[in-house]
Order: sequence, then C-alpha cells, then structure tokens
Amino acid sequence: MDSQSEGFCVFDFVISERRTWCKFDPAGPIFNFAHIYPHNHKNMSETNGAPKKGVLERLRDGVVVGDGGFVFALEKRGYVKAGPWTPEATVEHPEAVRQLHREFVRAGADVCQTFTFYASDDKLDNRGNQANKTHTGAKINQAACDLAKEVANEGGCLVAGGISQTPTYLSGKGKEAVQAEFRKQIKIFIANNIDFLLAEYYEHVEEVEWAIEVLKETGKPVAANMCIGPEGDMHGVSAGECAVRMAKAGADIVGINCHFDPFVCLEGMRKMKAALDKADLHPYLMVQPLAFMTPDASKQGFIDLPEFPFALEPRICSRWEIMKFAREAYEIGIRYIGGCCGFEPYHIRAVSEELSKERGGFLPEGSQKHDQWGLGLRLHTKPWVRARARREYWENLKPASGRPFSSSCSKPDNWGVTAGHDMLKQKTDATTEDEIKQLAAK
Amino acid sequence: MDSQSEGFCVFDFVISERRTWCKFDPAGPIFNFAHIYPHNHKNMSETNGAPKKGVLERLRDGVVVGDGGFVFALEKRGYVKAGPWTPEATVEHPEAVRQLHREFVRAGADVCQTFTFYASDDKLDNRGNQANKTHTGAKINQAACDLAKEVANEGGCLVAGGISQTPTYLSGKGKEAVQAEFRKQIKIFIANNIDFLLAEYYEHVEEVEWAIEVLKETGKPVAANMCIGPEGDMHGVSAGECAVRMAKAGADIVGINCHFDPFVCLEGMRKMKAALDKADLHPYLMVQPLAFMTPDASKQGFIDLPEFPFALEPRICSRWEIMKFAREAYEIGIRYIGGCCGFEPYHIRAVSEELSKERGGFLPEGSQKHDQWGLGLRLHTKPWVRARARREYWENLKPASGRPFSSSCSKPDNWGVTAGHDMLKQKTDATTEDEIKQLAAK
Amino acid sequence: MDSQSEGFCVFDFVISERRTWCKFDPAGPIFNFAHIYPHNHKNMSETNGAPKKGVLERLRDGVVVGDGGFVFALEKRGYVKAGPWTPEATVEHPEAVRQLHREFVRAGADVCQTFTFYASDDKLDNRGNQANKTHTGAKINQAACDLAKEVANEGGCLVAGGISQTPTYLSGKGKEAVQAEFRKQIKIFIANNIDFLLAEYYEHVEEVEWAIEVLKETGKPVAANMCIGPEGDMHGVSAGECAVRMAKAGADIVGINCHFDPFVCLEGMRKMKAALDKADLHPYLMVQPLAFMTPDASKQGFIDLPEFPFALEPRICSRWEIMKFAREAYEIGIRYIGGCCGFEPYHIRAVSEELSKERGGFLPEGSQKHDQWGLGLRLHTKPWVRARARREYWENLKPASGRPFSSSCSKPDNWGVTAGHDMLKQKTDATTEDEIKQLAAK
Amino acid sequence: MDSQSEGFCVFDFVISERRTWCKFDPAGPIFNFAHIYPHNHKNMSETNGAPKKGVLERLRDGVVVGDGGFVFALEKRGYVKAGPWTPEATVEHPEAVRQLHREFVRAGADVCQTFTFYASDDKLDNRGNQANKTHTGAKINQAACDLAKEVANEGGCLVAGGISQTPTYLSGKGKEAVQAEFRKQIKIFIANNIDFLLAEYYEHVEEVEWAIEVLKETGKPVAANMCIGPEGDMHGVSAGECAVRMAKAGADIVGINCHFDPFVCLEGMRKMKAALDKADLHPYLMVQPLAFMTPDASKQGFIDLPEFPFALEPRICSRWEIMKFAREAYEIGIRYIGGCCGFEPYHIRAVSEELSKERGGFLPEGSQKHDQWGLGLRLHTKPWVRARARREYWENLKPASGRPFSSSCSKPDNWGVTAGHDMLKQKTDATTEDEIKQLAAK
Repeated sequence: MDSQSEGFCVFDFVISERRTWCKFDPAGPIFNFAHIYPHNHKNMSETNGAPKKGVLERLRDGVVVGDGGFVFALEKRGYVKAGPWTPEATVEHPEAVRQLHREFVRAGADVCQTFTFYASDDKLDNRGNQANKTHTGAKINQAACDLAKEVANEGGCLVAGGISQTPTYLSGKGKEAVQAEFRKQIKIFIANNIDFLLAEYYEHVEEVEWAIEVLKETGKPVAANMCIGPEGDMHGVSAGECAVRMAKAGADIVGINCHFDPFVCLEGMRKMKAALDKADLHPYLMVQPLAFMTPDASKQGFIDLPEFPFALEPRICSRWEIMKFAREAYEIGIRYIGGCCGFEPYHIRAVSEELSKERGGFLPEGSQKHDQWGLGLRLHTKPWVRARARREYWENLKPASGRPFSSSCSKPDNWGVTAGHDMLKQKTDATTEDEIKQLAAK
Repeated sequence: MDSQSEGFCVFDFVISERRTWCKFDPAGPIFNFAHIYPHNHKNMSETNGAPKKGVLERLRDGVVVGDGGFVFALEKRGYVKAGPWTPEATVEHPEAVRQLHREFVRAGADVCQTFTFYASDDKLDNRGNQANKTHTGAKINQAACDLAKEVANEGGCLVAGGISQTPTYLSGKGKEAVQAEFRKQIKIFIANNIDFLLAEYYEHVEEVEWAIEVLKETGKPVAANMCIGPEGDMHGVSAGECAVRMAKAGADIVGINCHFDPFVCLEGMRKMKAALDKADLHPYLMVQPLAFMTPDASKQGFIDLPEFPFALEPRICSRWEIMKFAREAYEIGIRYIGGCCGFEPYHIRAVSEELSKERGGFLPEGSQKHDQWGLGLRLHTKPWVRARARREYWENLKPASGRPFSSSCSKPDNWGVTAGHDMLKQKTDATTEDEIKQLAAK
Repeated sequence: MDSQSEGFCVFDFVISERRTWCKFDPAGPIFNFAHIYPHNHKNMSETNGAPKKGVLERLRDGVVVGDGGFVFALEKRGYVKAGPWTPEATVEHPEAVRQLHREFVRAGADVCQTFTFYASDDKLDNRGNQANKTHTGAKINQAACDLAKEVANEGGCLVAGGISQTPTYLSGKGKEAVQAEFRKQIKIFIANNIDFLLAEYYEHVEEVEWAIEVLKETGKPVAANMCIGPEGDMHGVSAGECAVRMAKAGADIVGINCHFDPFVCLEGMRKMKAALDKADLHPYLMVQPLAFMTPDASKQGFIDLPEFPFALEPRICSRWEIMKFAREAYEIGIRYIGGCCGFEPYHIRAVSEELSKERGGFLPEGSQKHDQWGLGLRLHTKPWVRARARREYWENLKPASGRPFSSSCSKPDNWGVTAGHDMLKQKTDATTEDEIKQLAAK
Repeated sequence: MDSQSEGFCVFDFVISERRTWCKFDPAGPIFNFAHIYPHNHKNMSETNGAPKKGVLERLRDGVVVGDGGFVFALEKRGYVKAGPWTPEATVEHPEAVRQLHREFVRAGADVCQTFTFYASDDKLDNRGNQANKTHTGAKINQAACDLAKEVANEGGCLVAGGISQTPTYLSGKGKEAVQAEFRKQIKIFIANNIDFLLAEYYEHVEEVEWAIEVLKETGKPVAANMCIGPEGDMHGVSAGECAVRMAKAGADIVGINCHFDPFVCLEGMRKMKAALDKADLHPYLMVQPLAFMTPDASKQGFIDLPEFPFALEPRICSRWEIMKFAREAYEIGIRYIGGCCGFEPYHIRAVSEELSKERGGFLPEGSQKHDQWGLGLRLHTKPWVRARARREYWENLKPASGRPFSSSCSKPDNWGVTAGHDMLKQKTDATTEDEIKQLAAK
C-alpha cells in the first residue's frame, strides 16, 4: 500500500497523472477520459492494425490484472446455481454474462477469461445436472468464447480460455479419460483463436500436469493454477513441489487460485516461489485468490468451512484488504494478479488503483466513480462522514461484523478424502433424499 | 420461516406447486416455466389489454415484493460514486441500470422503482457534485423513468417514482424551497405516467409531510418511508408519531426504509403499527431495510457506524437472515416488503421464496437457479457439502466472520446534529483539504 | 475515572498524600504506613473506646466501600459448592473465610458482611443439601458473625448481617413462613450486636418488603438490595417502583446487587433514583454488582446465561472496568459501592483507588502492592511492557478474549417463570437423574 | 476427557470409588473422608516413619499433579506487585502464602513449590525494587521454605525448591555471575532439605543449562522447564533442541512452563518429546502452562500480548478447558502436570478430577465441594440451571465473552530483542518518567 505518498497531494497527483495519461492531445481538454474502454492506451498499436501484445510480453514488461469471479457473482445475480456451479448462463442469459465481463474490464482487468469453469461434459452431467442435456457442453463453451471475445475486443483485453478439474479424475478413471474431457473444451478455444490458455482450480498436481500436457499441444501460452494453500495438494504434495511440477510440465505461468483468502494464498505463493527459485525455474507467477477471509480454513480451503457457500457474507473482503493484498503480491514478485470467487468488480478496481503507478499511472474508467482512499466522501452531507475522507482512516479500520452472536472463526468439516477414495466417486444420477439424510447424520 | 413444513417433502411440494403454477395448459409439459418474466401470471388480463392491477389493490389482495438497493449495488459494479450517491448512471450507463432492474424482476420484485434517489437538482449540485452541470436533473430523471418502465413492462411490474430528502431542507431553507425541488422530479414522473409515487429516506418527519403534500396533488397512490429506527426521527419525534403524521398527511402506504438492519427496522415498524392502531389509522405498511446488520447503530443508523460506507462487508446479511426478516415482516402485518442499500438480487429472491405460499405458490424465474434451502448442494462433489443440503443446517448456522482481530460491534460516530444546525448547512462548493483535516481532528 | 489528573504527577501526588495521611507523627519516617489495617485512621477515636461511626453517618459524610463476593471466590478456592451456594464453610473452614475477609479489608472495604448468604434453614435443606443436618443453620450463622466481627475489629470496619431470598417464598408458602425463616437468622445477628442489617438478593419486591419489615423491628439501620436489572422484578414491577416500595417499607439504604454487570446495574440504579426523586423519597443509594460482563442477559440476569456458573471466565471484569464503574456510580449519587459475585479483592481495591480522593486521599494497604494505573510495570524487564506503565494505555484497551471460536454474546435460557409457578416449587429431596434428563430435553 | 464413561452412573461410580478409597476400615462408615489432607493415602508408610516416596518414583509409578501459580493469584489477593513479581509476601504476609499452599493441596496437588520465583538477589534489586533492601533474599527464600514444608507435611506432599531466570543473564554478565545468583538460593534449599529442585521460567536454553549444572551439584532430583512455545527459545533454538540440551545437561524431568496457553504448551511438548525420542533420551516430561488462552501470542508468549498483565481476564481458562488439557497432556505421555500463572485452586482440582482414574480413583478433598461435570447444579432452584447438570453441556459449551466491542485476538507487541541486546540490559535504578514516555512513543 506504499505505492503513493500520503493524503491529498497524492490524490491530486493521481488525478493529474490520470489526466495526463488520458490526454491524447496535450492541447486538448484535460477531462478527456478514454471514454468507454481505457485499455486502448496499452494497445495503441492495435488501433493501427498491429496485433495485441501477448500475455507473456505483458508480464515481462509489467503487471497483468486479471478479472474476478463469475460463478459467485452470477449466483447472487440469479444466473448460476450453487452446487453444480456450471456456466450454462453463457447460453441462457448472455446479456448477464456480457455485463459482468464489461464491469471487470471497466474495473481495469487486462484479461477476459471465458466463462467455462466446470464446463467439461462430465461435470455438466454430474449428479443430476441437466446442463449438458439441455444445451450441450459445446454450445456453452462456444457462447463463452463469443462473449469474452466481444468484450475483450471493446477494451483491448486478452482472452484466456479456461479449463478446470473434472469429476472424471476424482472418480479415478485415469489419464486418458481425463484428457479427453479437456480436449473437447480446448478444441473450441483454438477454433476461436483465444489468446492464451489457463488450467485453474486443481486440487491434485497430477491432474494439472495432465491438463498442462494437452494445453501445451496447442502452442499457446499456458497458465496453470492450483486451488491449494500453504499445505499443498490433496495427495500430500507440498505447495513448492506442486509449483515445480507445473513448471516442469511446461506451464509458462504458475500459481494459485480460489479456496483461500488473499493472504493465505500469498503464503502459498511464497512457498512456490522459494521452491521454484531453488530449482532454478522461472515461470511467471500468478495469483487469483478468494475475496473471502479464511484464516480458519483447513487444507481443503473454504469449501470445508461450515459457511460455504450460502453464509460467507461476513467473510467478504473490503476494498482496503484487497489493496493490501495487491501490494504484497506485487512485492513477492507476482505479476499476474486477479481474483476468483467473491471478487466483484470493485475488488478488481481496488487492485487497479493499488497498482496504478506500476501500470504507468493508469486508472480504469471505473475509478471515475471512486475517488481513491474514500475521498468521494468529501461530498457527503454529514460532517463526521466527511471526516472519513482520508487514507489513514480506511487503512487502519478493523471492520466489525454486527454479529455479536457469531464467532470469528469456524471449525472446518473435513472428512479427509482424496482422489481415489470411494466417497469421492462421482455419478450422473441425482443425490437422493436418503443419501442426504445419511450424510447429515455424520 | 414457518411458511413450509420441513425437509425434502417441502422441496418436492414446492417444486410441484411451482410446476402446477407454471402449467398454463394442464396437459402441457410440467417443465413449462414462464420463460422470461414470470410475473405474467399476475397480469394475465394485461395481455388482453386490461390495465395492470394497481399497488393498493395488490396490497389489499396479497403481498407486494419491492426491489433492492441501487446505489450500493451499482457502486460495487462501478457506476455510482459513494459520497454523493447520485444516479447519473441512468444517463451515463443505461445498460448497467437496466441489467440491475432485470435482475430484481427476475428475483421476484413486483415493483421497479425509478433510479431517482438523490436526483433533486440541489443534491446533484451539492459540495462539488457535477452531475447537474453535466447532465441536468431533468435528463437523469427522464432516463430513470425510461429504464424502469421498459423493464417493468417486460415483467408485468409496477413503476414507482421516488423522491428523497434534500440538502435544501437540511440547510433550513423552508417549505417552499424544499417543495420546489420535489415538484421538478414529480412533474417528470407524471409526464411518464408512472404507477405510484414514493417519498423515501427522510430523517425528519416535517420534510416527509411536505413531500406527501405535493405527491398527493397528483392523484396517484402515495407511499412514504422514513429512514428512522425505533428511536424515531432526528428532531425527537417518536417512530409511532412519525407514522401517524405520515398517515394523516395522506400517505396510503407508510413505513421505514434504509439506515437499519432488517430486525431493527421491524422494531420500528412494530412501534409504528401500534401508534397507527391506537389512532385508528390503517394505511398499508411497508418496509425496505438495509441488508447490513446494525445492532450497534445509534439513532442515526448505519451512516454513523465507522464502517460506513467502505467496510460494511462483514455486516452483509445472508439469504437466510433475509428469509427470517420476510417472515417476521409478514407476521407483523406488513404487506409491502422489499429492500434498500445492500439488498442484492439474491436477497430479493429470498423474500420471494419465503413468501411463495402467500403469493399463491409463485416462485420467481431466478429460483430456477436456487433450489430452496440449499438443496442445490445435492449436486456438489464433496460429501460433506452435500450434507448441508437441508433447511435445518442453514436455518441454525451462525456465520463466522473470519476476522479474529475485529470486534462484533462498533461505537458509532455521532455528533448529534439535526436540521437547522450550522454544521449541517449544505453548500455547492467542494469540501477543501483543510476542512477535512479539521473534521478528522475531532 | 476523572478523580485525578493524568500521568506521573498524579502518582507522586497520591503517594505523598498517602504518606501524609499515614504520618501519625509529622516528624516520623515518611514510610510509616498504617501497618496491618489502614482503616484505623477513620476510627481513631475507637482506640480510645469511643464507638465506631455508624453506616448512616458514614454515608452522610462520604463514601462507604463494600466488600466483594464470597460464594464465587470461595467456590474457586474450593470451599463452597456451586449449585446450593450455601456458606457452611464458616464452620468447616473458618481459616479460609477469615482470609477472604482480611483480603477485602486490605483492599479497602469499610464493611465486613457476615458470610450468611443463603443461610436460611430452608435453603440449607433444599434439594438434598445436607448443610443443615450436618451443621445446623444456627451454627453456620454464629460462626459467620464471629469471623466478620473478628476481622472488622482488626480493621475498624462495620459488620453487616445479611439475609437473602428463600425457597419458602419461591414455593409460595406465604408471608408468615417466609418471615419465620428470616427471624431465625436475625436473632443471631442481634445477639452478636452487628452494626447494621442487609436484605440482599431478592428477585421479588414483595419478599424484600417482608424482609425489611422484620429487619426494622430490630432498630438497626437497614439496607435492602434487589437482584434486578433495569427491567424490574420477576413479577413485572418496574425498577423504580421496587425502589419506592423498599424505601416506603423503611429501608434506610436502597439499591441493587448481583445478577447484572456493573454498567447494567447502574442503568437500573438510574431508574431507581429517578423514581425515588419523583416520590420525594431520599434513602441512601447502594450498588453491589457482578464482576462479570452481562450485556446479553435477559430480565433474570446472569443465571440464565448459558455460561452460568462454570464458564463465566471470559466475562470477568478487569480492574479498569471496575474503576469506570466506581466513578459512574459515584456520579449518579450512589454512596455505598461494593461488589457481589465475581468481585475479588483486587476489584474492591480498584474501587478504593478510584474513590481515593473522595475518601480524603485514603489508599488501602493493598495498594502498596499496586502502583495505580499500571505504574508498577516500570519495574518490568521488557521495555515494551514498561511502555504500558501509564493510565491512557489501560483506560483505552479493549481486551481480546483469545477465543476465536466463541461469540461475544449468548442467548439466555429463559423459561419465564416467577414465584408461585409450579416449576419453581422447591423441595428438600435431591433432584433425580430422570428429572435432569427431562430438563435437558427441553 | 475420556477417563470415565458418561453421565450419572459415572458420578455414582466415582463417589463409591472415593468412598472405598477413603475407608481406612472397610467396616467403618462410608463417609469417612480423609479429613484434612487426603494425600495421606499416598503416604501411609510415612505415618509409620518411612520416608516419603520421591518425585522420580512417583513419576515412574503414576502421575504427579503440580500446584498452580502464586504470583498472579497473590497479585489478585493483594500481596504481590505486578511488574517486579517478586515473592516478598513470604516474609510480609506468610498467612496469605500459607493459605494458597493449602488451597492447592486441597485441590489435589502432590507438590508444594517454594514461593521463590524471581527471588534471586539481582531481581529483588532490579529497577528500583526494594525487596532485597527491606527483607534480604535470604530471608525471603527461607520463609518460602518454611511455608512450603509446613503445608507439604500436613498433606504428605513433596517440596520443590524453585529458581528462575535472572536479570544478570539478560544483561549479558556471563556464566559465573549467573550461577552465583542461583547458588545463593540453592544453598538455602539444601539447608532445608527440600525434596527436589526445579529450574523454571527460562527463555534461553543456555541459561537453563547453567542452572541445571549447579542444581546437579546437590545430588537432588532436578526438573527443568523453559517458558517457550513451539517456536523455541529467544535465540532461535528449536523446542526439540532445547529439550535435548536440558536432558543432556542432566535434568531428570524436562518440560515447559508459563508464557502460553495449555494447548500451545502441548504443541511445544510434542516437539520436545519427538526430539528426545529421536535422541534416545528419556527424561520424565512435565508441563505447567498458563491458565490464559493465547492462540494469538507470538514467540515470546503472553507478555507481548497487549492485555498483559492487567486485562487478561477474558482469556482465563474454564475448568473444562483445563480438564481437556490434562487429558491431552496425559495422552502425550507427560506425567508431571500442573499449572503456572492464572492457575487457581479450582484449575488444579480440575486436573485432579480428570486424572482421578489414573491416580487410583483419588479425588481431592476440594472435590467434596465440586460434584464433577457440574452435577452440583442439581441443587439449584431454577429448572433451566438444573438442566445444565451434565457432562455434555459443559464439554461442548463455547463461552461468550460478554464483550461485543472486543476482538477475539490481539496483535502482540514484539520488539524482537534477546539476551545481550542493549535494550534488555537491566539496572537497579527505578525507571524514570521520561524513559516511560520514550517507550510509549514507540
């Protein structure tokens, strides 16, 4: 959070920087904000027909800001079902998916990830899910590419085609079956010529290695993220070893996403970096954590917390916590910084604002509605609220929960199972009432 | 929360009810959901050209579900600035406002409020706000009418034209000046023939009386809400007396919005109802609370809490807390139940799901992505998460905050000022750096 | 807490005051502390055979500091059983009772209450209690008088003979039976010529009126305390009305003890004072609260909290909280200030230190081991602990609980019964295992 | 906590066991409790003039229960000053020290530690402490031996002579100077023929090695405890290595005391045991933790927590937490289990009750006033309190703090200094006001 000096001068400085940056013509009006999509500045050559700068070049030259989480945001908006968490909204409600893409770009994201999380055919069919029957995986993935490309093009952003872990792996069906699932999605990404590929949300290093292997076949840059914490993967492989194995499998970008809060993820990233350095491996580093506080999560992360997924509200990170995270991530040497579940557009804007200096003074269009460090409160009617229009106020506040009957931490559920265990074998039939009763009795 | 009996049978019952309701043709396929906007069922006559049923008739015959809060939701999405909280997004980003309207309708709202909160000219000019200069109040209000009407028509919903308290009143400029501000907005609502009028977010009963007076001139049904808690208004008028004065001023619908959490608002509503009953006055009752927990707020509500407005995350209500609220509100006799700041679409859906039986088995389209009481978790891969797919789990959970260094309650700031105090005199100039320093030193 | 000005000067001032006061011979050594019992200063004439100043005179002229709670302190030391809470330790382990009396006097108490709480014969026989059979009530009460008088005489303190509410009343056996229980104890107090009488720990104003009636027959000064909070007694009589009825029944000193934390008790006292003032009644005011925080207790106080009596530790008041209480109590006009359950000797010392100026600069002997406001930490080895040797540090600290899995508040059990209800009928037989099972199932 | 089966039967079983054990004459009355000091059973031979069984034999054959903390308990009673924490009370108020010894023995302690903590001459002179000048270290240590022996003899207990870390070491004055301090105390212990020697409360393994060296010269059994947590000593030596070095220096009993809560101490003990096993060293294991919860303490323990020492109340362990600790300690293989700061007599009684079966059914005399698992509540007047008279109630309760404005965890102060640092150089002069101001400004 030390990217700028303190107080009002900072604000004025930033404003003038923004103005400066926005002025295409130094003689023009100083309020000439890049009107719809400010990313054009990073892609000026593109306006001349030159190709967009790729993700690896952007990482080499500076910071890449990722987008936020789709499944949680769209669940709250009414378009995704918690439980299966599958992305059939790309077909059913493209306008809602498009709007969320635009909000993340407006918040300063450099990347639009296709909304293809859990869009493998086996997942779209798992435990009574009807998304595959109704829409087919192919249509869902294609629609996701259409939407991500449309908005990315408006904003000069890159498109990342994403795959994630599969029920097939969890059910122990082996490498060939798992890779077959991946290939169906990848084929569509390649047909749409997306900019790079991302394997994310893997609990088992073996499965992400299999994913990287097929992603590398495409020749596109490959990013790989596991949803693990400092304790490593579900088979007992350490976080450091996971990073080394992802890099050795060929990932250009390596990191962690989901399952843990920003600060726990950074603990994991420190271990990854140390192991990679020791092995003399130097992929770019990436992190896309939860925007939920999880100091009490066990090895398997927030899924085991009793509040998952319908009572996580008190854990939602404030914008100030996200700014602190972005600064720490940058200082560790991470250059791809975005968010996963819980990250709303204003969280991505907080990353953009914290890293403004590192991005050449760039502030996203969304910051027109967010004077940094709460300075917009200078316009408030009540004097004691105007008194909060300063950095040190927000930087030091420890927010109360308004819940005197709740504790601050929870004991995770944790039945300690990993891939291959019978309990994790997946099936296409819906769970029965009796099965739930048996589970609840545990 | 006792609208339904327990467990799985409930779920099956609801599903079949929903199915029954959705069947336009009893011989047709049982999955024939009303596809885009389910409200058509309530307005079938409309499809024959008959007029929509008005708000008072709907209240007489059943429950009206309001929509949620626009300023907080759109601040997080990047379109509203915290501090002034003005709605120029209706002009600047109509697509974002339209999308939020659609999400609330999808969640089951019966009403689309015009996004005209704080859209009086004096507020659009207050303390350096440039919204009036750039767009004019007239254009902002007109665009709000266009958007609300467009989406309401899609969904068979009513449009409510809303006004709110003014800097003019706070600065002690008197009745004529205040009513002049109101009349500018009302003129536009009438030109657009909205369905009813709503004066909301008033801290002083005198000002809302002035508002009701001008709203009544239009001949439209009038709703009036104050943003007060059980302790009454800022001049020391009790909650009960405020209700009586609003009813006597002519409001058809009387209640409370904003400033306090659902359960504190209901405390205030109980006092209002008792005083109205005693005075033999019988307006319809309405409540649209915060979706933030505020057990620790003082008389002036959440604005005084140190977390307002940028660190309220740990206070956000879960869907289960909102269901409990909806049930209690209904049992008190309140028939217009919606939300204010903090209410996201999924909170309105929770109101709809809790009051499904009272609305003839109606479930909104958004419930297609939300099997009630967490039953969608039956599709989850991990067995201990599937074990949470039951009502009693979520109904009894006290969510942890994940913040062991935060307290559960805060001491409010409260400089104890009311209308007429010098400190509350508003001005059009921007607040200076020195003024903030002086305030911060208090 | 404003009894003294800030910081080190204060400390030096107090020390020199104390020295001055302690100097019997101005030419003598300045460290001539009154060696064993400092109260002699207030009773110098007594050493010449003159009578001790009575409680009413002391209250008229200044502040009387009470002692702390015996049943909780001796339960932790191993001499009282939680559940019956009866004082047979006066017979079984007089050395332990004597030591606790001495500690309270050393902490600055002006009064030694006989340890006769719950020492009525009916209580000593209730629900399988064998104390009456083994020792007889008469012996327990006589031993209590012996011990209180012995230590009071060492320290120039007054002896108060105390009675409390009875199972006979709760079982609805009527005035005569109840007063017969009181008379047995009072007879012993009078035979021992104690200084004044105290009826304390009454939940029902009717019973305390009956108690005052018999206490008044003795001609001794009478104090009367109910264990109620701001909501009044168990029959629905308001706190103010309770005070008025106690005063009208003849109590010279009226107030509240036990059941609620210091600050909740003061809320009740404010209501009592207002009602007494309104009725033009002017008894002395007295308060002896818990040293447990109970913001979440319901009408019946800490007994209903789930933590009572074996998990109250996190609620124990710090010495700083007690100092704040003593100051507020004094400012309300209360002149008899002591403690009940949870008050350990160091809490009484905190009252003495806070009210030092009001008692003519008097500091108790125990303060020789407690440099005020933590100044003893100047002798600590670690520099960051020495940094805590100052008033503003301790005055502002909000202590953490070290319990991240606990909430800050509890929901009280509260089956809402009052005297006369069948459920509260008491009996001499022990509770059976089956009865407990039935209760636990509720 | 699994030492007994559940519920009422347990209780009856224990009672009858106790009765059986207490019957000296099987034909005698079953209520023949060993009247004053129940330990006679363990020392029957002694009554015939045979020597007491030594500590090592007792550890070999079963469990030894230690006593609790003196400095904190006597600070609250008014006889010890927080800051210097020195034990001049042995001379000034022997009756208070004697009473506390008796309470611990009544609670079931097998050992009376001489109250000689911080009784080295250099500590009695440190930073303005006048205890050495007034009383001399020799007198304080002698009086401590007298008191411990007196009470130990009453109860058939062992006497342990204790030494602790010195300002001399912290000031970097070297081995010879440090050992000279130790020798002065040890000489007195040997003259009084105490049963065994204990070096406790050492933050630096080097200093405890020097202590063990001189203790071994006496030929008495030697116990050695460091006040470290799982992270090891202040010079960076791991907990495991500390244990190995203490054992190699000749300690017969090795462990941890003070500075951390029971469960954190057990984490440290697990590391010690693992390292000792690996080194094939097999001293007896001992633990005497705080009775304050410290999950948030850093490497230097509770002293760094902002609440130390005057606002630790919310952290005090309940008796149930101590029972859980005692069971876990036993299961690790620790055989000397007692307490340090914060342990009151009822905490030691909880250890005794939890380990009753392991001590041949022995229950201490104090348990006559404590029906286990809250069963004494069967005698309570209110039915909902009687409902708490069962094990599962207390075992599962998470106690609330009654402090909604406090957090659950604190950030420790921690200036990171170790022995030899200038900041830790000790001196005999009192700290000045200016020095405190400078420290406070940090």
